[in-house]
Amino acid sequence: MQSQIDHRAIVLLSGGMDSSTCLWWVKAQGCPEVHTVGIDYGQRHRVELEFSARLSARAGAASHKVLRLDLTQFGGNPLTDAGVAVPKASEAQQVRTVVPYRNMLFITLAAAHAETVGGAGLYIAAVKDDDRSYRDCRRAFYDSLEQALSLGGMYDREVRIHSPFTAMWKTEVVRIGLELGVPYEITHTCYEGRRPACGVCDACVERIGAFRANGVRDPIAYEIGVDWKQS
Amino acid sequence: MQSQIDHRAIVLLSGGMDSSTCLWWVKAQGCPEVHTVGIDYGQRHRVELEFSARLSARAGAASHKVLRLDLTQFGGNPLTDAGVAVPKASEAQQVRTVVPYRNMLFITLAAAHAETVGGAGLYIAAVKDDDRSYRDCRRAFYDSLEQALSLGGMYDREVRIHSPFTAMWKTEVVRIGLELGVPYEITHTCYEGRRPACGVCDACVERIGAFRANGVRDPIAYEIGVDWKQS
Repeated sequence: MQSQIDHRAIVLLSGGMDSSTCLWWVKAQGCPEVHTVGIDYGQRHRVELEFSARLSARAGAASHKVLRLDLTQFGGNPLTDAGVAVPKASEAQQVRTVVPYRNMLFITLAAAHAETVGGAGLYIAAVKDDDRSYRDCRRAFYDSLEQALSLGGMYDREVRIHSPFTAMWKTEVVRIGLELGVPYEITHTCYEGRRPACGVCDACVERIGAFRANGVRDPIAYEIGVDWKQS
Repeated sequence: MQSQIDHRAIVLLSGGMDSSTCLWWVKAQGCPEVHTVGIDYGQRHRVELEFSARLSARAGAASHKVLRLDLTQFGGNPLTDAGVAVPKASEAQQVRTVVPYRNMLFITLAAAHAETVGGAGLYIAAVKDDDRSYRDCRRAFYDSLEQALSLGGMYDREVRIHSPFTAMWKTEVVRIGLELGVPYEITHTCYEGRRPACGVCDACVERIGAFRANGVRDPIAYEIGVDWKQS
């Protein structure tokens, strides 16, 4: 596992809570040159790409690049296929929102982009909540992927994947973000792509839970009434 | 390194000599179910995709899937950027045709597709000639990538990347292909995308050399006169 900060960083920035917090966290570590990457993968909640760009600008990133990867070509996934319903919140169903090797493809694309900006450490905001459902959100996987990226790059140099939040629950990540002043009002989470957010999809329910656990009201609007009292 | 044959195989089939030979080789090993994958990455020699489909049909593959990955978004590469000249044959220049992590992205896409067909061994036709210029054509890299794919897949199973030709020169691969009856007349190699082939780009010169070393005339046509006598 890597812990020290790279001089030049590329943050995978979806526009959601975790990656936004990661961006502010990297800045807070004193990284002098931060680039951001968003991925247009055919997501139905593509509104997140607008928020990703706004967050990058707000953070003062050196550049923001949107990379395209059409995951709809694999089919059958609710995040990219309008004919498949987004599952309502239920932990057991989260696996249905998995596109095979999605994170691996995103990171490899970011690594390819990193070579064009002269080499940079990659930062990804996977949280502990993810690693039950997504095997490519686990640190052991990132360790292995680092090795493949180092062996397969154009130059003989060590590629590093930093995942500062893999040992933290989403609730802890939000706590850090609140301390760092992350502008959560311009983040996007809802899998349905709605603003106001639907409040009932998997992603919304997780987000609401993380704010509620911190005793804080989420600054974004929801279609449904939400009880923000700490549970 | 893996050597035994998988029951179900996915062959990365560019439409060129090496991957076509790999497809016929996998069939000759007795693999009962062979699928093929072509990649539309914005290559200017996209005519190769037609040949890839024809080769798959000729080989009697169970399926052929074209996966899209836009590598033009990284820019500055002669294989995808019409504004950049394809280098003439010269080993030292081959590195200029590298898109960062191209093979890694192709294999990871094929692995994602493999999950949709129920799990399969991946076959890639990298040859010894490639490993001087392309770090992601070396067996050590494939060993590492196998581990990352196994750790990051949707299911806990071993993913295998077979690279039967990494220890062979292109000349030896063509010798095997000639023995196996590969229909080289429907393969495509020219980086310029020309039929008849240009005969002077890196890829053409390597192809011509491999046939000539086997004392055989290439069945495809060239724009220039070629001396087929064994050197």
